[in-house]
Amino acid sequence: MHRILTVLLVATAAPAFADEGMWTYDAFPAAAVEKTYGFKPSSAWLDNVRLSTVRLAQGCSGSFVSKNGLVLTNHHCAHRCIEQLSTPKKDLVKAGFWATTQAQEARCPALEVNQLVTITDVTAKVKDATDGKAGQAYSDAFKSITADLEKACATAENLRCDVVTLYHGGQYKLYTYKRYQDVRLVFAPEFAIAFFGGDPDNFMFPRFDLDLAFLRIYENDQPANTPNFFPWSPDGAKASELTFVSGHPGGTSRELTMAELNYQRDVMLPRTLLRLAELRGFVGEYQRRGNEQKRHSNALLFGIENSYKALKGMYDTLLNREFYAAKAAAEAEFKAKLEKNPKQKPVLAAFDAIAKSTDALAHVRDRLVLIEERQGFSSELFGFARLLLRASVELPKPNGERLQEFAETALPATKQALFSPAPIYNEFEIARLTVSLTKLRELLGPDDPFVKKVLGRESPESLATRLVKGSKLADVKARQALWDGGQAAVAASNDPMVQLALRIDEDARAVRKHFEDDIEAVQQQNSELLAKARFELYGTSIYPDATFTLRLSYGRVAGWQEGDKTILPFTTLGGAFARHTGLDPFALPPRWLAKKGALNPETPFNFTTTNDIVGGNSGSPVINQKAELVGLIFDGNIHSLGGEYGFEAARNRAVAVHSNAIREVLQKIYGATRLVSELEGR
Amino acid sequence: MHRILTVLLVATAAPAFADEGMWTYDAFPAAAVEKTYGFKPSSAWLDNVRLSTVRLAQGCSGSFVSKNGLVLTNHHCAHRCIEQLSTPKKDLVKAGFWATTQAQEARCPALEVNQLVTITDVTAKVKDATDGKAGQAYSDAFKSITADLEKACATAENLRCDVVTLYHGGQYKLYTYKRYQDVRLVFAPEFAIAFFGGDPDNFMFPRFDLDLAFLRIYENDQPANTPNFFPWSPDGAKASELTFVSGHPGGTSRELTMAELNYQRDVMLPRTLLRLAELRGFVGEYQRRGNEQKRHSNALLFGIENSYKALKGMYDTLLNREFYAAKAAAEAEFKAKLEKNPKQKPVLAAFDAIAKSTDALAHVRDRLVLIEERQGFSSELFGFARLLLRASVELPKPNGERLQEFAETALPATKQALFSPAPIYNEFEIARLTVSLTKLRELLGPDDPFVKKVLGRESPESLATRLVKGSKLADVKARQALWDGGQAAVAASNDPMVQLALRIDEDARAVRKHFEDDIEAVQQQNSELLAKARFELYGTSIYPDATFTLRLSYGRVAGWQEGDKTILPFTTLGGAFARHTGLDPFALPPRWLAKKGALNPETPFNFTTTNDIVGGNSGSPVINQKAELVGLIFDGNIHSLGGEYGFEAARNRAVAVHSNAIREVLQKIYGATRLVSELEGR
Repeated sequence: MHRILTVLLVATAAPAFADEGMWTYDAFPAAAVEKTYGFKPSSAWLDNVRLSTVRLAQGCSGSFVSKNGLVLTNHHCAHRCIEQLSTPKKDLVKAGFWATTQAQEARCPALEVNQLVTITDVTAKVKDATDGKAGQAYSDAFKSITADLEKACATAENLRCDVVTLYHGGQYKLYTYKRYQDVRLVFAPEFAIAFFGGDPDNFMFPRFDLDLAFLRIYENDQPANTPNFFPWSPDGAKASELTFVSGHPGGTSRELTMAELNYQRDVMLPRTLLRLAELRGFVGEYQRRGNEQKRHSNALLFGIENSYKALKGMYDTLLNREFYAAKAAAEAEFKAKLEKNPKQKPVLAAFDAIAKSTDALAHVRDRLVLIEERQGFSSELFGFARLLLRASVELPKPNGERLQEFAETALPATKQALFSPAPIYNEFEIARLTVSLTKLRELLGPDDPFVKKVLGRESPESLATRLVKGSKLADVKARQALWDGGQAAVAASNDPMVQLALRIDEDARAVRKHFEDDIEAVQQQNSELLAKARFELYGTSIYPDATFTLRLSYGRVAGWQEGDKTILPFTTLGGAFARHTGLDPFALPPRWLAKKGALNPETPFNFTTTNDIVGGNSGSPVINQKAELVGLIFDGNIHSLGGEYGFEAARNRAVAVHSNAIREVLQKIYGATRLVSELEGR
Repeated sequence: MHRILTVLLVATAAPAFADEGMWTYDAFPAAAVEKTYGFKPSSAWLDNVRLSTVRLAQGCSGSFVSKNGLVLTNHHCAHRCIEQLSTPKKDLVKAGFWATTQAQEARCPALEVNQLVTITDVTAKVKDATDGKAGQAYSDAFKSITADLEKACATAENLRCDVVTLYHGGQYKLYTYKRYQDVRLVFAPEFAIAFFGGDPDNFMFPRFDLDLAFLRIYENDQPANTPNFFPWSPDGAKASELTFVSGHPGGTSRELTMAELNYQRDVMLPRTLLRLAELRGFVGEYQRRGNEQKRHSNALLFGIENSYKALKGMYDTLLNREFYAAKAAAEAEFKAKLEKNPKQKPVLAAFDAIAKSTDALAHVRDRLVLIEERQGFSSELFGFARLLLRASVELPKPNGERLQEFAETALPATKQALFSPAPIYNEFEIARLTVSLTKLRELLGPDDPFVKKVLGRESPESLATRLVKGSKLADVKARQALWDGGQAAVAASNDPMVQLALRIDEDARAVRKHFEDDIEAVQQQNSELLAKARFELYGTSIYPDATFTLRLSYGRVAGWQEGDKTILPFTTLGGAFARHTGLDPFALPPRWLAKKGALNPETPFNFTTTNDIVGGNSGSPVINQKAELVGLIFDGNIHSLGGEYGFEAARNRAVAVHSNAIREVLQKIYGATRLVSELEGR
């Protein structure tokens, strides 16, 4: 693998070149764009684009595409909603869905959409509050100031305020979002075309996917009024055209120290991949139990396979010796600069502190993810039980002292998850819980006191069966009663899931507290020191690592060179028919086969751009300089996976659905005239 | 982890200390044993022990324990035989088996037992034949001289001659074995006690397993006459007693270069672990299809979980920074010594050649294991098809030009596997083949020409179903007919498995040839150069890496220190009852529960020793200085897994069944009086 090691430049904090960068809206390098592409986005242009972009709180991006709250995102971002709206008799994932009238638009049980309204710098306030503190004191102070700032800002239920960390603590900003929780499904194509090519084609190109869903935001039971939106481009994306992608890259690790990269390479990535591989084998075979089992486990399998492939790409990047050596050289260079400057020299100690904390993390990681993050208790019912238990303990506390997920601003999302009417499948619950309890026993050992406390003299299978069959928490009303009843009701509950949650909560909280106070706080505080030193040298001429906050990237429509092979940037609708074999995952939906003759086979279907994106950007609009919608991000190519650690300009490509294809198939295959009219502003 | 880094000493080729070492019988350090333990094995003692030890050709060890061909080995070494002798109605794995009369002893479909008769040094002959050659010429010459030496030696069907590589080419020896293919099952306990504690307790201690099976060797349909055997010790293993373990450690990597260790750490181990993790998830869930499916997939699941845990331990060892740094320092020291000696200095180039070849291997590895080693085609039927096809092509060639598995000396084992009457389970065949074809497509990509050649327009599932359902190769007679019919019959066959084997054989052979000529030959030749240089410095005062050849290790009964906890070296039969929960894998068999009162609970059950063993030693006898049987190796503790790369004297322990426990339960639980009488020489 021969990488253009732009990461070296990032890590030494020199300005990025090529089209690299996930820029915040308040520090967008408009001049750099003008220099390369001859177009300078104005601040009005930026404001409009920002307000036309949305975030799906569960982990995706999207955009307004009409003035009436119509949102375009990916099918895979709405997959769980589509699955939850399905029943054993009406499989919307398989059949697709569209509302021919507004009345048919169907509410998603657990989707939240956010629109970023304002950005306020609160760096000084956060640093004042934590100044001179360390460990638990730092951690408590940080949580407290964050909760205070968020609560003071969130003056209404429909405002969401998040204190976000940028540059690993170089900046703290208060992001204020408008929060929408009434989100309805308008259109979703068949899974077979949304994810044509399945896992084999995932992160690959050429590609032929209609990975889209249309949602609509409602307020007061009416379509929301959304004056900022992206109008449909008459022509769609053209070769070499300047493109912008606005969205919420989930997270990158481009500024990490070598100690942190070692941890990712040697601990986090291999352990996570091994877990996902085993889950994949399990769920893949579980699907063969029957069609119903396949239906209700499909979204999970998709998630597992998608994560596996993405993390595998990241892992391969870190195993690349050249890449890793360049990262090490960059850190050595940064250290040398600090060494030379007497004022900055003390900052060097931060590297050691971070290294120690990663060793501590490696030591405690399995317990943390198994016990507190519930990987040892993979069960929706157990998730409810823990939420109810903790809510009963946390909600009576002052806002700033609560666990993060019970802070006032996080409550709406927590409640939405807890009271989602989505069905629970006991058979799958038992199977998953059995597998995860087995893993718990394997990783901690059968004689570990915690494992003994959980299993007693039961086996993972017998315990899982007893817990799931005995629990009433699948019923929303039962959850509501425990929520309303508070601590007394929870303590008195004879629900076995609640009792398990009670029995292990002390252990779970202890490992979380150790992590937050002794590891996370140390890493955050020392990363802040490094970030500050970098800032003194470069300011905002570099972009911060992604943190699921809104970013804008620029680039152009382009293919790439794969060895001696040129990969062209466009595929066509006709290409999908050529790839069709009739067998999953290369089987086009019947409706496509029937309407093949009506389509223009030359219509561009998917395309690639040089925009710098990562996971979380799924559903992001691709727009031209007129802020017209020309495409819909749904993937990156295989070289984009290393984007976690650095941008490889020569080969890292974003993959999008072309707007022309969307219009063509909505009209000619789905006859979705109501939708097309709305998109075209008629 | 704090390791006693004796590996450093090994790698720099200084004599080993503590009880480290897997010694060949012709270079056993008797004087060193005498110095530490006051007992010096004579050459007669060594001859008797050697001849009393056997190898199970499929990958285990064992020993003669009576003059009538009675062999003691592990249950897990005989597991496949026991499974193959079972039927859906008579599950011998679950129920156990014992022949109350000799007539009831049941022939294993595919077990071969070898007894090492002579060792001849052929180093000069091999080196003469390959002198001055490289790449394919070297590879061909090596194969040719090896086949010639083996054929000249194997003058009868019941002689097996293997040219074995020691010290990575520092020595070549011709090992002559007596070969026994009529192996019958005499006794096997219930799986529930053979593998009590299951995967959770595997590689752990304290331990409570009766992991044993008795087999008997037949010649001319009569029990074989075996004058060399280990008599039963009256007292069994005692605390701190000197113990010897004679057996066939499968392989170690203690002499590898850093480039090769990098390859293991970054390529081989993570990729193999990911594969095993996914298979484990798959087979674990497959078992939930029903009891019959559980029965016929149990041995495979055991193998997967056992490999997974073993490789995971090896992987963790290589990820240990201190350990790895010590290895690197040792190599640097060795290089420095070579550098200083003008005659040895040119050998340094061997390090670079090996490093290049590991990069080449990393590049081609997936294709090699998927296509040639059949990981992409996990199907017994496909295995038969390929063997039949290749036999038809290879057997007409001169012996020295054939693929290794068709050389005259390998033929008996190849034929035994091919014509085994063990049943084939179509449902499992289809499931496994589907999963492995999916993996083939995933790893090579759906557009890879080889993948397209295999799948065409079919899916892994449809192809697997068609191949398995259409094949007649489950019938031994069909296999015999193709074997007898040779190339013409194979070419004319309309069996879809045979046709697939034909269609891809060119690809499979090409990747094998590339590996053998351009990678393996380079590694072997350059390892020889390094080994020669080491030899010039140290001779046989060091032991060679394990290669599934007979070795003798010495040590003593001892526990170890785990942090601040002292692990005692013995468990008792009573301890097994304390650990019993009634639920798999902690459920004692009904027979044990019924006979609990008859047992002396203080009888030692399992114990640990400091003997240096690894996988392949399973089934090895533990003997005292009188060459009496005092135990049966069946495992190592968790610290033994790093033994692949170095011996950690402080904590690496072998785990064995105590001979007293064997006698106690044979008498009091199983009432196996015939067997007890034979063991006691009555």
